[in-house]
Parts: sequence; C-alpha cells; structure tokens
Amino acid sequence: MDILFTFNLSEHQQNELVEQFPACTFHFKRTASCKEAELADVIVTYGGNIDGALLERAEQLKWIMVASAGVEKMALEEIHKRGILVTNVRGIHKTPMAESILAHLLALKRSIPEIYEIQETKDWEHSFDSMELKDSTAMIIGPGAIGTEVGRLLQAFGVQTIGCNRSGKLADYMDHGIRFEQLIDELPKADFVISILPSTEETKGLLTEQHFDVMKESAIFLNFGRGDVLDEEMLIRVLQEKRIAHAVLDVFQEEPLPEESVFWSLPNCTVSPHVSSKSGKYLDRSLIIFKNNLEKYMNNEKDFENSVNLGRGY
Amino acid sequence: MDILFTFNLSEHQQNELVEQFPACTFHFKRTASCKEAELADVIVTYGGNIDGALLERAEQLKWIMVASAGVEKMALEEIHKRGILVTNVRGIHKTPMAESILAHLLALKRSIPEIYEIQETKDWEHSFDSMELKDSTAMIIGPGAIGTEVGRLLQAFGVQTIGCNRSGKLADYMDHGIRFEQLIDELPKADFVISILPSTEETKGLLTEQHFDVMKESAIFLNFGRGDVLDEEMLIRVLQEKRIAHAVLDVFQEEPLPEESVFWSLPNCTVSPHVSSKSGKYLDRSLIIFKNNLEKYMNNEKDFENSVNLGRGY
Repeated sequence: MDILFTFNLSEHQQNELVEQFPACTFHFKRTASCKEAELADVIVTYGGNIDGALLERAEQLKWIMVASAGVEKMALEEIHKRGILVTNVRGIHKTPMAESILAHLLALKRSIPEIYEIQETKDWEHSFDSMELKDSTAMIIGPGAIGTEVGRLLQAFGVQTIGCNRSGKLADYMDHGIRFEQLIDELPKADFVISILPSTEETKGLLTEQHFDVMKESAIFLNFGRGDVLDEEMLIRVLQEKRIAHAVLDVFQEEPLPEESVFWSLPNCTVSPHVSSKSGKYLDRSLIIFKNNLEKYMNNEKDFENSVNLGRGY
Repeated sequence: MDILFTFNLSEHQQNELVEQFPACTFHFKRTASCKEAELADVIVTYGGNIDGALLERAEQLKWIMVASAGVEKMALEEIHKRGILVTNVRGIHKTPMAESILAHLLALKRSIPEIYEIQETKDWEHSFDSMELKDSTAMIIGPGAIGTEVGRLLQAFGVQTIGCNRSGKLADYMDHGIRFEQLIDELPKADFVISILPSTEETKGLLTEQHFDVMKESAIFLNFGRGDVLDEEMLIRVLQEKRIAHAVLDVFQEEPLPEESVFWSLPNCTVSPHVSSKSGKYLDRSLIIFKNNLEKYMNNEKDFENSVNLGRGY
C-alpha cells in the first residue's frame, strides 16, 4: 500500500510511521504533481491540491486524508463518484480555535489593545473602559466540535450561550438551541456573535444585512468559519457606520486578504490572517488521528474517525 | 449616623442609598479634608486618603469601608489601636482581574500582539508560532479570592494549577498546594507564574533572583498583586537577559510607573497600568457589599462581609 504525503513531516514523525506500519510504503515530502501520485492508495494533504487533474492521474486513490477542516477546495463531486474515502482532522482545531476566540473576546473586553498602545507612549494615566465577559450572551452559529468547545469555555466565564444550527437541536454547552430561521429574532440578545460555519450551499450568504441590523450596537462579531457566509461589502458598511462595535475576522472570501481591502484599516475590525487554528501541537495531533484511521484501514474496519460526509461537505 | 463618601457616586446610586437607609445622613462627593470628616461615623474611600491627620480629626470614626482591596496605604496601627472596623471589597475584584489575567495569557499564547502588529503593515503572510494554554502548568502565588478564580478558569482551559501560600493548604481550584518555602523546588514545573499576593511584612521581597533562576526559559511571569513582592532591578535584569520569556506587570513599587522606567520599553514586558481590576460593574458591586454591611451595622450584627484583619493586613 502506497501512502503519499504532500506536506513535510519531521524525521522523527516519518520514522514513527515507518516503524509502526511496516506493510506500507511511505512517500514523504512529495507534491501532488509527482510521479508517485499515480501509485498512491492514500494521499495525505492540507486539501488545496486535490483537483480534477490529480484525480485523473491518481487511479489507485482510495483514501484522502485532509489535515485541515475545510474540504470545499477539493473536487468533491468526482471524489464522491469514485467512492474515495475522505477523512479530516476537524476535532483537533477545537482547542487552538476556541482559545483564539476567547483570546480576542477577552482582549477587547479587558482593554488589551489599549494597554499595548499606551506602552508605546508610556502614558500611565490613560483611562480605559474595561468591561467583563461575565453575564454576557453569546450566539454561536455552528455549534459543532469547535463551537461547543467555545461554548464550554464561555460558560466557565459566566456567559450565556445560544447555539444556532439547521435543526435547532440543543448542542453541548449551549444554554439554548435555535434554528437558522430564528436568528433574526434572537440576535438582539447577543453581545457576541460567533460564526464557525463551514462553507456549504446552505451556509453561503446565510448572514445578511438584516441580521446585522438587529444586533446590539455594542455587539462583537467574529467570523472563524468561512468568508462566504456573508457579503463582505455589506460588513464593511456595517463597520464603517458603527452599527456594531467590532468585528474579528479570521476568514475572508479571498485569502490572502488583498492589501487594498478596507478591512485592514478599519479601526473596529481585527484582521486575523487565518491563523486561529495554528498550534505547535497541530501536526502531532493530526498524525494521531491518521495513525488511528490507518490502523482501522489496514484491518478492514470501517468506523473511521472524522470521515467526511461528501453530500453535506463537512 | 453620618456617612462620608470621598469618591463620586451617580445620582441614581446616591438616591438608592438615601432611600434605603433613611436613618443615615449621607455626605456625598466630599474629600477627606472636608469639615464633615469630623462628624463621620463611617468613611467610604478608595483607601489612599486615610492617614494620621485624618484619623486625628475624625474623632467619631467607627468604620472605614475601603472600595479597593489593598489597605497598606492606610495608617493601620492607629486604626487598629482605636478599634475602628475596616471592611474592603476584595471579592469583587475576582471577576475582572481573573479575566484580565486570562486575557494576557491567551493573548501571548495565541499571537494577539503579532496579529495587531501585522494589521499595521497589512502583512498576511507573516507566520506566527501560536501555542496553547491547554496542558500547561500554572503556579498561583496567593490563591485567595482572585487566585482561586484564576485557578477555576485555568482549569477550564486544561491547565494544571499549583497554589502557593503560607500554610501549603490546598485552596479551591488548585490541583496541588505548596508552601512559600517549596517554591524553589516547584517553580521549574510552571509555564505561568502568577503572583497575586497582598503587600504584608511577610510578602515583601518574597520572590528573589533564585526563584527566577529556576523558572523555565519559556515561563511567563505575571504580577497582579503588589510591586514590592520583588526587587524590580532584579526583574529587569532577568527580562533583559531573557532568562524567562515574558512578564506582565499590573503593579509596581512606584505608581504611576515613572516614564524613565526600563519596564516601558522592554519588548518582553507588558506594562498594564494597574487597570486589571477595572470594570464597568465595579462601583455597583462595591455598593452591594457596602449596603449589606450597613444593614448589619444598623442592626448591631457583627458578621461583616470582607472585614479586614488588621494584624495580617488583608
């Protein structure tokens, strides 16, 4: 069985795989365009390089292991048609992403940007309007693995959590559960509006100007899902007119965000360049999931961790 | 009974007090040097103005309500001798201060300073070494009301907590409890070293160069207690030589921190100008405690909330 890695592993990580799976042939540090792709039973990738051209060449391909959460850049229809297994690492994002979301919220409430600023001017006497997370309300749009971890942490801070998904089914660590259609009625309660939705046909453009119009003027909006959940021109208008207090954006319709984007220079917008899932522990955690699934694969077991439902797209 | 406020309340807050306690005469928006201090049975103060001169004039004084946590600036010996009751609001700092401590730790681990920086240069491609709080170890020196709240939140993030106090008695939300004398042996385990000690004869200079010498090079030190727990020249050396990774200092031996202090310009030091307890909810929470104690006082009850042990100084 041939396994192709299209990103780099450390020597140590490579050796562990080779030792643990002697029946497999590993091709490390290759690209999707390399010769070995034609032989590969398994491709391990960050996801950006699985296009129609590769699929045509990779005739033996039975399993794509994506070491990220989003699969929307891949040629999903073709993969689905060929019955190729797709697994991802969605669970491992929850800790770094939830910590990043809390970091941004706490920073804004506890005057961290102002503290950093006055250090430049050595201005001790500057006064801040610091506030608290405690007793706020958070709307978590997409309470999946990451969203429920955000909810768990927010609840520890005494924040009321509302989870919003397609069914309205109550997710873990949510005080309430609502459907997408109920957002308009429930958003006026929220101090924090956190989108962690994947990009699917259903979520594209889900958040409209009407939604922003009913938010509190003091609301903080965070998008840590995908950029296409809203019209960016609309959000820029909302922020320029201060109809909400602040936005923290980790994702954009076009990434890298073009230098000429207005988002960069809006004082009430934090641009986080798609780094919220970064963690020194990322690759090791991905490999734990991969090894676990490879073990199952070799034993002809079918209950893979994090297999992707290609119909739904996540 | 005459009650003197040496700081400002809103009209609404004043009216509530007057209505709720018709038997009391309130003197709002006065200074410690005003004529009414001579009549006052109760002085409500932030604590900085209770000196020997005031005590001499305030012959009727029976109770000092301090709307802060530290009482070390007051003429404690004289207050003790005259048997004046002192109460403070130490409980109400715990939420904003614990949120500030978490905000600083999360900011440093999740690359918030770098994210703010690159927004200036619109540099999307800049790469960060983001890390996690999860699976770290925190040493909490002074696990009182604030420290245990910090411990509670850190545990929610999967951080191991060690509480360090005089007795070594295990405090709430601590995984372990150690005595001051054990610090040297236990500090090598800590990723975060958080001092929240009050200023007393016992805590002055408690943290020495030896303590910093055994900390991890990656350790983050936070002082949110009092500046005199260590020699600042020593800490500056430690930071200049990068013997630890970073310090976040909310308190200093001299406040305001002089403009010429080296702390302002050390890249691995965050100067938080004694703002960590600030909160839009501060005064309302102080008044809840005050009213509760005033009720007891009027009823000749003795079990006051947050009465200060003048022998210990906190």
